Amino acid sequence: MIGYGFMGRTHSNAYKRLTDFFPVQHRPVLKAVCARDKEKAQAFADNWGYERVETNWKKLVEADDIDLIDIGSPNNTHKAIALAAAKNGKMIVCEKPLAMNVKEAEEMVKAVEKAKVPNMVWFNYRRVPSIALAKQLVDEGRIGRPFHYRATYLQDWTISEDVPQGGQGLWRLDAKVAGSGVTGDLLAHSIDTAMWLNGAITRVTGKTATFVKERMHAVSGKKEAVKIDDACMFLAEFANGSMGTFESTRYARGRKNFNTFELNGADGSVYFDLEEPEYLQYFEYKNIGTGKKVDSHTTGWRKIHTTNSEHPYMNRYWVPGTCIGYEHTFLNALADFVMGIESGTPTQPDFRNALQTQKVCDAVLEAAKSGKWIKTGVKL
Amino acid sequence: MIGYGFMGRTHSNAYKRLTDFFPVQHRPVLKAVCARDKEKAQAFADNWGYERVETNWKKLVEADDIDLIDIGSPNNTHKAIALAAAKNGKMIVCEKPLAMNVKEAEEMVKAVEKAKVPNMVWFNYRRVPSIALAKQLVDEGRIGRPFHYRATYLQDWTISEDVPQGGQGLWRLDAKVAGSGVTGDLLAHSIDTAMWLNGAITRVTGKTATFVKERMHAVSGKKEAVKIDDACMFLAEFANGSMGTFESTRYARGRKNFNTFELNGADGSVYFDLEEPEYLQYFEYKNIGTGKKVDSHTTGWRKIHTTNSEHPYMNRYWVPGTCIGYEHTFLNALADFVMGIESGTPTQPDFRNALQTQKVCDAVLEAAKSGKWIKTGVKL
Amino acid sequence: MIGYGFMGRTHSNAYKRLTDFFPVQHRPVLKAVCARDKEKAQAFADNWGYERVETNWKKLVEADDIDLIDIGSPNNTHKAIALAAAKNGKMIVCEKPLAMNVKEAEEMVKAVEKAKVPNMVWFNYRRVPSIALAKQLVDEGRIGRPFHYRATYLQDWTISEDVPQGGQGLWRLDAKVAGSGVTGDLLAHSIDTAMWLNGAITRVTGKTATFVKERMHAVSGKKEAVKIDDACMFLAEFANGSMGTFESTRYARGRKNFNTFELNGADGSVYFDLEEPEYLQYFEYKNIGTGKKVDSHTTGWRKIHTTNSEHPYMNRYWVPGTCIGYEHTFLNALADFVMGIESGTPTQPDFRNALQTQKVCDAVLEAAKSGKWIKTGVKL
Amino acid sequence: MIGYGFMGRTHSNAYKRLTDFFPVQHRPVLKAVCARDKEKAQAFADNWGYERVETNWKKLVEADDIDLIDIGSPNNTHKAIALAAAKNGKMIVCEKPLAMNVKEAEEMVKAVEKAKVPNMVWFNYRRVPSIALAKQLVDEGRIGRPFHYRATYLQDWTISEDVPQGGQGLWRLDAKVAGSGVTGDLLAHSIDTAMWLNGAITRVTGKTATFVKERMHAVSGKKEAVKIDDACMFLAEFANGSMGTFESTRYARGRKNFNTFELNGADGSVYFDLEEPEYLQYFEYKNIGTGKKVDSHTTGWRKIHTTNSEHPYMNRYWVPGTCIGYEHTFLNALADFVMGIESGTPTQPDFRNALQTQKVCDAVLEAAKSGKWIKTGVKL
Repeated sequence: MIGYGFMGRTHSNAYKRLTDFFPVQHRPVLKAVCARDKEKAQAFADNWGYERVETNWKKLVEADDIDLIDIGSPNNTHKAIALAAAKNGKMIVCEKPLAMNVKEAEEMVKAVEKAKVPNMVWFNYRRVPSIALAKQLVDEGRIGRPFHYRATYLQDWTISEDVPQGGQGLWRLDAKVAGSGVTGDLLAHSIDTAMWLNGAITRVTGKTATFVKERMHAVSGKKEAVKIDDACMFLAEFANGSMGTFESTRYARGRKNFNTFELNGADGSVYFDLEEPEYLQYFEYKNIGTGKKVDSHTTGWRKIHTTNSEHPYMNRYWVPGTCIGYEHTFLNALADFVMGIESGTPTQPDFRNALQTQKVCDAVLEAAKSGKWIKTGVKL
Repeated sequence: MIGYGFMGRTHSNAYKRLTDFFPVQHRPVLKAVCARDKEKAQAFADNWGYERVETNWKKLVEADDIDLIDIGSPNNTHKAIALAAAKNGKMIVCEKPLAMNVKEAEEMVKAVEKAKVPNMVWFNYRRVPSIALAKQLVDEGRIGRPFHYRATYLQDWTISEDVPQGGQGLWRLDAKVAGSGVTGDLLAHSIDTAMWLNGAITRVTGKTATFVKERMHAVSGKKEAVKIDDACMFLAEFANGSMGTFESTRYARGRKNFNTFELNGADGSVYFDLEEPEYLQYFEYKNIGTGKKVDSHTTGWRKIHTTNSEHPYMNRYWVPGTCIGYEHTFLNALADFVMGIESGTPTQPDFRNALQTQKVCDAVLEAAKSGKWIKTGVKL
Repeated sequence: MIGYGFMGRTHSNAYKRLTDFFPVQHRPVLKAVCARDKEKAQAFADNWGYERVETNWKKLVEADDIDLIDIGSPNNTHKAIALAAAKNGKMIVCEKPLAMNVKEAEEMVKAVEKAKVPNMVWFNYRRVPSIALAKQLVDEGRIGRPFHYRATYLQDWTISEDVPQGGQGLWRLDAKVAGSGVTGDLLAHSIDTAMWLNGAITRVTGKTATFVKERMHAVSGKKEAVKIDDACMFLAEFANGSMGTFESTRYARGRKNFNTFELNGADGSVYFDLEEPEYLQYFEYKNIGTGKKVDSHTTGWRKIHTTNSEHPYMNRYWVPGTCIGYEHTFLNALADFVMGIESGTPTQPDFRNALQTQKVCDAVLEAAKSGKWIKTGVKL
Repeated sequence: MIGYGFMGRTHSNAYKRLTDFFPVQHRPVLKAVCARDKEKAQAFADNWGYERVETNWKKLVEADDIDLIDIGSPNNTHKAIALAAAKNGKMIVCEKPLAMNVKEAEEMVKAVEKAKVPNMVWFNYRRVPSIALAKQLVDEGRIGRPFHYRATYLQDWTISEDVPQGGQGLWRLDAKVAGSGVTGDLLAHSIDTAMWLNGAITRVTGKTATFVKERMHAVSGKKEAVKIDDACMFLAEFANGSMGTFESTRYARGRKNFNTFELNGADGSVYFDLEEPEYLQYFEYKNIGTGKKVDSHTTGWRKIHTTNSEHPYMNRYWVPGTCIGYEHTFLNALADFVMGIESGTPTQPDFRNALQTQKVCDAVLEAAKSGKWIKTGVKL
């Protein structure tokens, strides 16, 4: 495990719970955590039960007793670690976004594919049962010809001008470390989900904004210009002919984790909101069993409480009506990754798939700069 | 029209809009309004276009140019007016509750049935499209064997001790005029809807409360003991074997007109809330078309936006997605009454039907006094 | 009244109810309705109580006994009628969108301003109590520095390829008559509301789509190419520095009249959805009374049931907790128009104000064609 | 750990996660699990990491290396185990309901109090952050004089007549093992929460029903009469003068885990629904900071997303906007228990407190039999 921040915690939790909940044949062993600050890394290791601590990730990547490298450190470190880990034949699971840009991501894809090491990017939201159910409904043909996709990812935690950039927990506000702002952090999730459910995004136009122009930098101790995008909105064309709107921001007062999407097709629609993850909303117009329209006086948006045992992942947990938490999305992802290796059918998204999301992110940023529609070059 | 208060307005509006929206063969003519306060009655007549004003209801009841008497005056006047109107062969439409008690109600039923005059009680909520749709779903067999019925009617407008009892608009707080408090005013609605949807209530036990013991009386100008029930809750047995809970109050902070019901059956459930009247919520477990269970991973409570032309009454109004207002429930009721006469199939609830609701109200109040289960004697 | 379609009904209803609900000094007299089809016009006149029928709008515009011309006919007739009516010194109330394009709209503004006749465009949604309350909250300073505005107007009634274009009730699908598709019909509403609440839109980029390429034309009886936009989405910059996303379509399965907006500011946010018009959602971060942040453990989106007497327009109707219907938005608009004349302070939006909305519509369509950001030239 | 069923899993999970999330000084060691079926117990032990397995709970209770006994076995075993564990000086944490009836519960209270062993009953819902927040709002004085409390606990999993009674996972349907049906299983939760938030329940009347009269018994292999209550509803008086309605059932089609409550007071109200546990709804009428009424045009029910770090327990988990799962309520409870011991301030509910809930359950069942109001004798 490289990194001990927010994602260090969610991933560590997943490793520790894996065999409690999933019938996998391998039990993860928490060998080592690596971070530059030895004291904090040690505290983290003590808390979560890692056997040892390293302060140089190169040691970890070369260690004989380590089979898998988990890259949970800031975005600007992903490439170097992944390349070294691949070279040493380690399995790699990497936090999203995969890289600082497409160029880096392409190098990383090349490295893992050459080394033939199992690899995954932690787009954990695919493992929210409600989102996985949306995918299932799409695959069952319940949506029909798609017309519209709309997604938002809204938060409000950086409105205050007093929030510093850089430093522990706040490197996401520092462009040198994060690459971009909400585009890589939040929109990457929205784009990954969108292309999983609705196919390739082919062309985009968009706009970014930076509302607070200067913030204290936690490392330099000085006010510095803010270089990340505080907000980003874009329009999209999908390969299947449908249209999309996307928006993300950390300036939407009252929205904490408002990651939503809606897909409208001729035969049905689905809507999801991460702030109430236990629901998937579904409008059924045509019933796939009978092939006929639903009785028109009974149609309506239904809130599916996705906690029954037949819902994705839920047979591993409790009883109908009881929710799982945010961290289980990482646990589900890890289970898919391990079972993918055990079964010989690798799970998605791997690095190559995540590269496609990176392409859209880069195209959006380029569109925002140029004011023009930009082709993404996505290949799914 | 007897009475010019809140209900005087809603009924007058219905008479004036009837032919704008419904294909009836008769056009109401607003002949006269009657109230003791001549000046206020005149202002009301001017506003709504009544031809003349009376201060003595007996004159109205005997007038040759009047075919229909609308009793919108306080509860303690219903019986005398109805008896006289029936004797004079007038059609009668009466505000709910029908009477001060079962004894009065029985006299009124006898009078209108002897006189064979068309009669209706304004239980307007049966004409909310969503509630009428609930009835349709029940009649279509979508609910199956019923197990539970629960209803609330919650308001919060009398919490302040400064609200007086008696007088214009506030006679509902005066036991001498209103008969009972929330039981006759709010629970009567809940009971009427419940028995329409789920059949006879056979036995009840309950409890009432008066939270504010004294209020200024608007007529006497003095503080007087409050004799009405501020709140009433009761448990019920239905003839069909299902169980019911009912509660009404004017002390539920934040609830304005929270008239809700839920009916749970083996094959489906419905839920309604008058604060969002454009929705009926429906949980479909078994599909009546296929006779099979709905695919279990797609079940959920669906919010039916009851504004399509195929929903009850809605083909008379605007376009899908546009709501109608509270007053249209009275208009719909009037249209049903008039079309019932024109077609020879009287609409419901008539006096006899409303008497059954009165029986439950009286039984609830008796149960509250005695602490025992009381049989209602309802005959549907 | 020119036109007897959907809008003919909503406007006629407003004229007939005006004095029932509002304390205005003038009582509308329904003199004449005009339409090319005499028989249908007569039936309409009989239903609503118009004194006479005309088949040539020029006669109406010149009639001595007529003070006000209501343009409820298709978009391609607005300009000629408005110019003639202005020349004859009539008051004019015109359905939206004001015109087929900015050029026409500018002529119309010039005409009414030269003739100094009272004029209004029926952007009725400003008169939804919840939307008027949103405006009030903005004006009270509860939102603070604005960051984001997002609006959707989604319907689903043209998904079937069997819906014809042109003819009674369907001219909105015929580009020659309607000018544009959802842009003029639905987005015009969204834009009017947006600029009322959040100020001028200065620049846009966007995209339109026509999903069904050919439809039977009800007039020609032949399949013809569909020239209108079935869907339109655009990004916007506001003069105040905030960003906007807008989308409208008639292909969003399950959305009937999903006219929503959300405004996010530093101190608060509001959200509205026309499918449940009785609510305005409000997130209060800073309290304007105390000037302090709301206790953080109690913050949340609150659903304001906008039916209390202190809410806009609601003191004219029933009691707290009882909703008004869609058509009351026209009644409220008419009341504002009449009271504006009586008080000497004209109500908004007049033709000049509606011209600004037209500018945005035209800029969006131009952006959709060119793929570029377009300046709107809006002047508020 | 005695028992390896549903509750065995939730408790085991809590022990394993405790130190990952809470800064306690003691780390639980999973010494042994006990169940009659050795094979299943062994599988459970392997899965969760228990050191050894026992088939006789007496051995466990007497083991020197065991400090705490967790009673997760069926209700009819609680008393004997608790008495023996107390005698051996073990700490005891017991699943709810505490006992089969008040008599048993009283013996258990006496035993633990005599032995002075730390004890707790797993009424885990007090540890849902939203419910704990409701308690905080009450304690802050935000509700004011209470008028009404209403609770439901609705499920639908036993509607089918094919569900057997007795046996693994289904002993809750067997009266000999469970004592009662929904009263002890579901209503016990509702009552515990109600008395925590709103004080003692003093008097009740109620009714139970058994809808399916016979079920296959999993142990005997024969159809046997069903002796438990399938549904139970009751009315309550609280010591503080407010009124309550309670209902629970396993026959409410569409309700999975619909554990709701609402408390209405003069100054504010709260509402909670376990199916969306991340929200507490709050209606603020009077602001406790200013002592004044909230601006009336801005009042509404607000949905507090209880995932901020200032909400109860949430500083131990992730970031604002991310939910925790059902099992964390057990983890929170365990943390409170351990920290209560470490700090010297025992947490609640202990056996004595849970006895009060048992008194209400017994009174409800007696009322249901007798048809009379019954005094509960609760002492808080």
